[in-house]
Amino acid sequence: MNTLTTNNLWMMLCTALVFLMHLGFTFLEIGLTRQKNTMNILFKNIFIITTGLLLYCLVGFSFMYPGFSKDALGIIGFAGWGLQAPLADGVLDLSYNENYTYWTDFLFQGMFAATAATIVSGAVAERMKLEPFILFTILYVGCIYPIAGSWKWGDGFLNRLETPFYDFAGSTLVHSVGGWAALVAVWLLGPRIGKFKNGKSMAIPGHNLPMATAGVLLLWFGWFGFNGGSVLSADPSKTSLTLVTTSLAAASGGLVAFLITTFRYKYYDLPMFLNGILGGLVAITAGADVMSPSEAIAIGAVAGGLIVMAVLLIDSLQLDDPVGAIAVHLICGVWGTLAVGIVGDLASWKQFTSQLLGVASYALVCIVSSFAILKLLKIVIGLRVSEKEEREGLDKNEHGINAYPEFRLND
Amino acid sequence: MNTLTTNNLWMMLCTALVFLMHLGFTFLEIGLTRQKNTMNILFKNIFIITTGLLLYCLVGFSFMYPGFSKDALGIIGFAGWGLQAPLADGVLDLSYNENYTYWTDFLFQGMFAATAATIVSGAVAERMKLEPFILFTILYVGCIYPIAGSWKWGDGFLNRLETPFYDFAGSTLVHSVGGWAALVAVWLLGPRIGKFKNGKSMAIPGHNLPMATAGVLLLWFGWFGFNGGSVLSADPSKTSLTLVTTSLAAASGGLVAFLITTFRYKYYDLPMFLNGILGGLVAITAGADVMSPSEAIAIGAVAGGLIVMAVLLIDSLQLDDPVGAIAVHLICGVWGTLAVGIVGDLASWKQFTSQLLGVASYALVCIVSSFAILKLLKIVIGLRVSEKEEREGLDKNEHGINAYPEFRLND
Amino acid sequence: MNTLTTNNLWMMLCTALVFLMHLGFTFLEIGLTRQKNTMNILFKNIFIITTGLLLYCLVGFSFMYPGFSKDALGIIGFAGWGLQAPLADGVLDLSYNENYTYWTDFLFQGMFAATAATIVSGAVAERMKLEPFILFTILYVGCIYPIAGSWKWGDGFLNRLETPFYDFAGSTLVHSVGGWAALVAVWLLGPRIGKFKNGKSMAIPGHNLPMATAGVLLLWFGWFGFNGGSVLSADPSKTSLTLVTTSLAAASGGLVAFLITTFRYKYYDLPMFLNGILGGLVAITAGADVMSPSEAIAIGAVAGGLIVMAVLLIDSLQLDDPVGAIAVHLICGVWGTLAVGIVGDLASWKQFTSQLLGVASYALVCIVSSFAILKLLKIVIGLRVSEKEEREGLDKNEHGINAYPEFRLND
Repeated sequence: MNTLTTNNLWMMLCTALVFLMHLGFTFLEIGLTRQKNTMNILFKNIFIITTGLLLYCLVGFSFMYPGFSKDALGIIGFAGWGLQAPLADGVLDLSYNENYTYWTDFLFQGMFAATAATIVSGAVAERMKLEPFILFTILYVGCIYPIAGSWKWGDGFLNRLETPFYDFAGSTLVHSVGGWAALVAVWLLGPRIGKFKNGKSMAIPGHNLPMATAGVLLLWFGWFGFNGGSVLSADPSKTSLTLVTTSLAAASGGLVAFLITTFRYKYYDLPMFLNGILGGLVAITAGADVMSPSEAIAIGAVAGGLIVMAVLLIDSLQLDDPVGAIAVHLICGVWGTLAVGIVGDLASWKQFTSQLLGVASYALVCIVSSFAILKLLKIVIGLRVSEKEEREGLDKNEHGINAYPEFRLND
Repeated sequence: MNTLTTNNLWMMLCTALVFLMHLGFTFLEIGLTRQKNTMNILFKNIFIITTGLLLYCLVGFSFMYPGFSKDALGIIGFAGWGLQAPLADGVLDLSYNENYTYWTDFLFQGMFAATAATIVSGAVAERMKLEPFILFTILYVGCIYPIAGSWKWGDGFLNRLETPFYDFAGSTLVHSVGGWAALVAVWLLGPRIGKFKNGKSMAIPGHNLPMATAGVLLLWFGWFGFNGGSVLSADPSKTSLTLVTTSLAAASGGLVAFLITTFRYKYYDLPMFLNGILGGLVAITAGADVMSPSEAIAIGAVAGGLIVMAVLLIDSLQLDDPVGAIAVHLICGVWGTLAVGIVGDLASWKQFTSQLLGVASYALVCIVSSFAILKLLKIVIGLRVSEKEEREGLDKNEHGINAYPEFRLND
Repeated sequence: MNTLTTNNLWMMLCTALVFLMHLGFTFLEIGLTRQKNTMNILFKNIFIITTGLLLYCLVGFSFMYPGFSKDALGIIGFAGWGLQAPLADGVLDLSYNENYTYWTDFLFQGMFAATAATIVSGAVAERMKLEPFILFTILYVGCIYPIAGSWKWGDGFLNRLETPFYDFAGSTLVHSVGGWAALVAVWLLGPRIGKFKNGKSMAIPGHNLPMATAGVLLLWFGWFGFNGGSVLSADPSKTSLTLVTTSLAAASGGLVAFLITTFRYKYYDLPMFLNGILGGLVAITAGADVMSPSEAIAIGAVAGGLIVMAVLLIDSLQLDDPVGAIAVHLICGVWGTLAVGIVGDLASWKQFTSQLLGVASYALVCIVSSFAILKLLKIVIGLRVSEKEEREGLDKNEHGINAYPEFRLND
């Protein structure tokens, strides 16, 4: 009983920390974009966390943990509408799990669910209409994310491989799921007006760097819960190792990204430093509990290098991702997932093959589903605001007020 | 012993979360008002948290938990000046409570105490003099809040009814206590210059919406401690249910308020979305531990609707509440308290009657006391700054510096 | 086993709170300085937390907890490169400590380590070159801080005195270690252009007071972990007392500083209120577990008075400390350390002598080492940016972008 209390307590606090990541994402996304679209970004993020939770309550939790019978294919299942707390003699059955209650399980997983849409939000910022974004969010968070998630965490087919696919806290299940959709959305939407001139990428600086920095620190803080809670108990050895590997990967990711850009350019580049930290965090997420500190530093360092290259690559493909979401969540998410097969306790050729299969499976379902949804929305209601609205900013046209109405702004 | 350690640990972390709500309130209040009064708002909030804690240490804790003897009326009692930690053999007596120590009890309750004044702070923003606000805070937080609180939480008369009044975490004891005073203060103060023209309400937009949004997310985060800690132990079933109902009510409150305003007006209204979330949080607070998830969603949804109506009603009464504190804390506080008699585990006609009696008792003591204090202050030193000072902003005159001295502002 | 889980859980959450203090420091430092140096400050703080952790992993932890053999002098020791987790049968040996794992120990201490450099960062803001700051940080955080720390927390000579030197959570080991270096750096650097005119100190207002206020509230929040975690277990009596004394000292420190400045000047001074809170927090840190609530209030109150005097003194010495770091971390750190010999459970003449010896030892090592490092850096690469760069702001020249590129600023 006391063990349940302690473990459940840890899980609840980790849930709160993951919730706070939504403030981190909001700050980061605002900070790295222009002020004329700030209300729009705030609105999207508030919409995602509220609607995401309600959807996860209505269908998501049931899609993600469907309780597949062992002979089913393990691809799609559904445990029923709404929450169905197990009761024993009219009160909550605490034998549900020895480490947390049914309620804690739902809320912790629900906080994760909204993250996928948040990642997309950043990538499509400053030019996507609100209505299709809302509809996309509902479908992607309510159905695609949990169904895909069930493949591993819901004991689906990827969990039943001879050498099961491994994704500790979601480099693939959460981050790349958001990242693939971000890639598809960015490609379908096209770049912001003025982003590419004669094939050359133009810098569009974010309007509030202190906020972007605060966002990254809040995300790091929240990641203690994201990874720490993914141990699914307060096991002292595993949780504390996880916090150490998480923090060291963040540190080395940031440092490497900063060093590369400083040697390459003449300036000390803060946004790249920040994205390097996030890249390290995303990359370590798949194997945070099976890496040593030095392996974590190495995984983060590679992620820091990948971030710099990925940003250049995405730019050269004329894809416009205002906050670097694809580089951070997709590229580093894939890297971290594959890394589990390369270094750490599970490293083996068989594991690497399973990791590849997992990455490919998620790539397939995410690309296909987000393309289908977004293409349909593009045809029916259009994805993109008018040129006039884009130039004036989405705040004026969709929200009617400015985020900073008393401050004078540059023309 | 280990049970005490675990439960006490939960209570301490919840205490920290409730503390952070003061940053949430500060951000929200600043964000929804004009920049020329920002220093004043920062000052008030810093004053409230520091002085509130010291007052609660000096007298508040003793007023709130007076240890009424069973035959007393249960209306007012006083356990003595200052903190009086129970000792056994010279060290802290841990038999004080099986779930937390005397110190934890004091600090958790002390963090709550300052909240009542914070609610008032928002309602009177941009026009109330600092001196009377300080004096009001001292009397209201030091005496009125804890004495009124003792009626229920200090085992006073409302706790001794045949069917005891129920207020789990303070929809009435905290939020409506602040809300009634806010109503009285707003009425005595009158509206800001320019708020009503020819009987028509004019919008006065807040100057920093990212900060307001951050405030709401921080408040939600802090509410995990506010409601989760009100279980007064880390009981896995109750605490986790509480976090689920709290989050779902917040989500449905926000969503309903957003949907109503979007259908009514043509814009996606962020401030109403934010206040809907807060309304849901306040409303669920009275019964967060006795509601099912679907009941919590319903309570939040009603709160979301009430917020929209209450804002219109308050406007039509020519009352000027810059941040919507009356709608959020008073209207939704009353709704949530009554809801305990309507839905959930305790719902019954008898319970509803007790809830009504509780609401009425707090209305009476809060209206009478805040009117008496504020009326007296109005006569003796005046409540309102001069017209010149109001137009120039309180920052210049009371604090001598601007909150953003390097930014150019609109005239 | 369960005891370890619970205590370790507390330590991990305290670690997360101490991590968040870096956001608090960042907000505070930005808020109290000018916008043209904001990117520089953000960069420094992100650099410190990432590099600090990696350095503590590489050498710091080994310098600080060298496992001195009992006959050594207890001045300098080194346990070896990198982390060396104790293993038993190939898994982490949980007998390392009954209250936390090796990983938790490292991470909690690592979060502390970076703080020393953060303190210096504030004092040298707006005029110090980035390269020497980076090099100083590496040496000070990587070597000086942990070696000096080992004298007490690593069971060095100050811990082996007949009446051991006492510093519960680091008024001296952390705050004054940063404070002494700040003093030396400020003296070597000289004041910002325009700070002193004809020997008179000119006010240079910070550019974002809401951010400074948020920084202080976040620091207070983080201090629950800084002091609460320094109990090194979740012992209910000691941890909860610590949170109470910490909060009360913060409150009284702020209130006294505010009252003095209000009586002295005609304005309600927010920055002094904020620094008073920080002064109270720093001062209680040395003895937070051995003071009663009233003693904590007294220690905080004295700190609040000291802050006001120290700021005047530092100004009169023509030293320019933009954020008040010397007053807060050095003066109040020394005061709090000495206070352990004057009031509270340990107060005695012998204890006071040990406290004096401790303060003097740290003064010596910090002044000498920071002078040596900074003087060398001054000679080799120079400490200070050019006059042109200082006037234009460090952001433009070192980082190439502005923190708020879309806002119009005053000339």
